[in-house]
Amino acid sequence: MATEIERKFLVTGTQWRAQVTATRTICQAYLARAEHASVRVRVIDGRDARLTIKSARTQISREEFEYPVPLSDARAMLSLREGGLVEKVRHLVPAGGGRTWEIDVFAGAHEGLVLAEIELEHAEERFERPAWLGREVTGERCYGNAALALAGKVDAA
Amino acid sequence: MATEIERKFLVTGTQWRAQVTATRTICQAYLARAEHASVRVRVIDGRDARLTIKSARTQISREEFEYPVPLSDARAMLSLREGGLVEKVRHLVPAGGGRTWEIDVFAGAHEGLVLAEIELEHAEERFERPAWLGREVTGERCYGNAALALAGKVDAA
Repeated sequence: MATEIERKFLVTGTQWRAQVTATRTICQAYLARAEHASVRVRVIDGRDARLTIKSARTQISREEFEYPVPLSDARAMLSLREGGLVEKVRHLVPAGGGRTWEIDVFAGAHEGLVLAEIELEHAEERFERPAWLGREVTGERCYGNAALALAGKVDAA
Repeated sequence: MATEIERKFLVTGTQWRAQVTATRTICQAYLARAEHASVRVRVIDGRDARLTIKSARTQISREEFEYPVPLSDARAMLSLREGGLVEKVRHLVPAGGGRTWEIDVFAGAHEGLVLAEIELEHAEERFERPAWLGREVTGERCYGNAALALAGKVDAA
């Protein structure tokens, strides 16, 4: 179990592309969501699969339980999903101080949306804000992965 | 992934107790349930823990994906449950033909309820019906584990 403290932003430029250190393709969906927990299946680069239980968010932190699962199980579970598949390419960009920006470029139903996330040790921790960083959307439900899986297209503006 | 074909019955006698080959204590709850899937956490004998995804039942068969998880994760996940804890002692009783009756004696909110389940290879497979076997409740939602977790006391009669 890990406790996740993340902040999430819209991305307004492309200058980050010059600093990408790694890229992976993610296809994910939610199996079920309840008052206190959501259950996600994720396939990474068409090769690795994970089952993840996340507690409901309390402000910006949440508990997360993640387990590797066989790829064939994950593919079968994706067909049991609630809502749509979310497809995105995740780019890792150094954020300074040993931290990393995860920049998700969405495809499919959410093409045009680009979100940047940074994981922090403490809720109040400071971090550098690069020029391409747009409006903060931490805690805005419509930009949460579960909401993206259920909703139609979200405006990137 | 396994496909589960099970039939479930009320239990009307206690003669089965003489034939019990193994017993385990089960504490379980549901994290979330959706249209196509439910997600269960189970702790067995206070020692082993499992996370199980089951597809929605189509008649008497369903897909099941089960993974071992650390006990400390399971205990934390139980606190994220939807509905109540279900506590039961499961007794294994030989059913003939290499099959096994799983006889669940419920405690806590469902004390007094005793259910017997048998897992079959085919939906139409025949099996011996012992004298203690009561009314079949296969497919009756109120006797499903998810319903027991959410509901109050169910009549054993």
